[in-house]
Amino acid sequence: MSTTKSNYSRPLDFKNGCVEMSHGSGGRASTQLIESLFSPAFDNEFLRQGNDGVTLPAPPAGCRLVMSTDAHVVSPLFFPGGDIGCLSVHGTINDVAMMGAQPLWLSASFILEEGFPMADLQRVVVSMAQAAKEAGVPVVCGDTKVVERGKGDGVYISTTGVGYVAAGVALSGDRARVGDVILLSGTIGDHGMAIMSQREGLQFEADIRSDTAALHELVAAMLATGADIHVLRDPTRGGLATTLNEIVRQSAVGMVLDEAAIPLSKTVAAACEFLGLDPLYVANEGKLVAICAAADAEKVLAAMRAHPLGKEASVIGKVIEDASCFVQMKTSLGGRRMVDWLTGDQLPRIC
Amino acid sequence: MSTTKSNYSRPLDFKNGCVEMSHGSGGRASTQLIESLFSPAFDNEFLRQGNDGVTLPAPPAGCRLVMSTDAHVVSPLFFPGGDIGCLSVHGTINDVAMMGAQPLWLSASFILEEGFPMADLQRVVVSMAQAAKEAGVPVVCGDTKVVERGKGDGVYISTTGVGYVAAGVALSGDRARVGDVILLSGTIGDHGMAIMSQREGLQFEADIRSDTAALHELVAAMLATGADIHVLRDPTRGGLATTLNEIVRQSAVGMVLDEAAIPLSKTVAAACEFLGLDPLYVANEGKLVAICAAADAEKVLAAMRAHPLGKEASVIGKVIEDASCFVQMKTSLGGRRMVDWLTGDQLPRIC
Repeated sequence: MSTTKSNYSRPLDFKNGCVEMSHGSGGRASTQLIESLFSPAFDNEFLRQGNDGVTLPAPPAGCRLVMSTDAHVVSPLFFPGGDIGCLSVHGTINDVAMMGAQPLWLSASFILEEGFPMADLQRVVVSMAQAAKEAGVPVVCGDTKVVERGKGDGVYISTTGVGYVAAGVALSGDRARVGDVILLSGTIGDHGMAIMSQREGLQFEADIRSDTAALHELVAAMLATGADIHVLRDPTRGGLATTLNEIVRQSAVGMVLDEAAIPLSKTVAAACEFLGLDPLYVANEGKLVAICAAADAEKVLAAMRAHPLGKEASVIGKVIEDASCFVQMKTSLGGRRMVDWLTGDQLPRIC
Repeated sequence: MSTTKSNYSRPLDFKNGCVEMSHGSGGRASTQLIESLFSPAFDNEFLRQGNDGVTLPAPPAGCRLVMSTDAHVVSPLFFPGGDIGCLSVHGTINDVAMMGAQPLWLSASFILEEGFPMADLQRVVVSMAQAAKEAGVPVVCGDTKVVERGKGDGVYISTTGVGYVAAGVALSGDRARVGDVILLSGTIGDHGMAIMSQREGLQFEADIRSDTAALHELVAAMLATGADIHVLRDPTRGGLATTLNEIVRQSAVGMVLDEAAIPLSKTVAAACEFLGLDPLYVANEGKLVAICAAADAEKVLAAMRAHPLGKEASVIGKVIEDASCFVQMKTSLGGRRMVDWLTGDQLPRIC
């Protein structure tokens, strides 16, 4: 095997080079890829340990551990407002944050397709590292595999996040209670429509940009109010409608939403109408739903609006008793309609 | 979107059904896949929390956290002695165990290809769940995405493992010291040659079976001796040769191996010769290298041999001073040769 020639003795060509099968071999070429791209981009004291696993500090006394994982297969890889790199950081940070935890570390595993341009890989990795740095959540361990041309799609990234949640914080989808208020941190549908407009080559009056963002600091600000928050969840795949349906089922309650109160940008509304999509089912990557005791709703809303990622937050509905676990919506025209689960998939590979 | 018809109202067809794009939508079909396959197979108290992240107990006082991740893209998915399911459990458990930690929890993210037979997915998931159960390391959170036909290869699985390491245990690739003894837990090349014989459609006198196994209990038995173990590592991709080269580089030492002492089955040796491969570079999935103080080598060896996964353990060499960080080998014929890193990749997608 040591007779196979490779380019390992030459520097990686980040301008015209491509991913080769040998970059996934675990041998010299893998090491070169790690040392010339991943290590410098993600550099931190933990990654520098250089072993197959990483050793991390224990949580402060009384804290429990929170763990979450997501595979990212978004297509296209680059879209207005982001790319698969920052998305894979934000998505997993947000899942950890929705448990009320402080996200602390990420692992990243890459599945690269043979022939993927090194320049694109570099762009993804740099964006990912930048997102991790901005969020203060370092990538502390990783893995890279390469699959043959036609067995992947450039790059897929799975991230796992670990964080610590303080004693006394107990957020869960099964804690929504009749009378609770439902809050939403901002406009819906931006991420999904940014991807769709890119795919369809559509030009709208104003660019639609993905809302991809790390929400852990917004969550921390909300928790710091001491309000009685029961559920936090980010409405990603399947959109707001699917997320709320998950919660009513877990909590065995119903919900009534007020359509007019759900923030929606004019451009996203127009794009949805053009493509025949309902924004309630379109993915978000930088929004959260909070369900809290009615008495605390104003306090939570104020904390959300005081944060840049929640400045358009609003109360969008309330939790009601309903043995059928339906999500209903008072429409802008004064009627009521059922808001069902997403069925089928008209927006594949949105995240 | 709710107008798209899907099969969600019918039970999943595990006999003749296939993965559809809607199984990755986050909507009803995704939920059905989770509830009829993943949840029952992996069932445990943590997974049952049913949120995007999972809350886990804090470590005992004084313990640190260990985290490791691996993407699994092995081809074929099913091979003598295992499949991608159990491999993805063993691989990550072993990376956590090599840090001297007790592996406790796994996350799993699946990237499924549209059209992948449900029967195969079920077989993979059941094998994975069985491996997790046997190892006592539950899968506590997960994610599933679906990519279009021709953008994947059936299923890819990324797993991340978390565990706790006791105070005082400090294993690392940079801790090999001149005079240390190198031990190997058993025969080399079994996993890689099981895959290769399957790919090439070769029949050998005896079947070559992958050695895929979870090594954390072997590690625990070795640590329980109180021996001064400096490094543990599992020689997977790139084989024993690449693993040892990584260690000499991290520790700034050299090594001399004794070829005759390296356990190798006759069938694997014959298969390697037939295919022109050097077993030193062929992947293992159930073996470990231990480097320990010479005074403790017998004690560690005895503990290894007393465990079913270490019964063919042997001392294969020693750590020497070498500013060039070379791995040398005394050959069976009495000569010496350099054992270089794996270069190129003649065994793609071995794990």
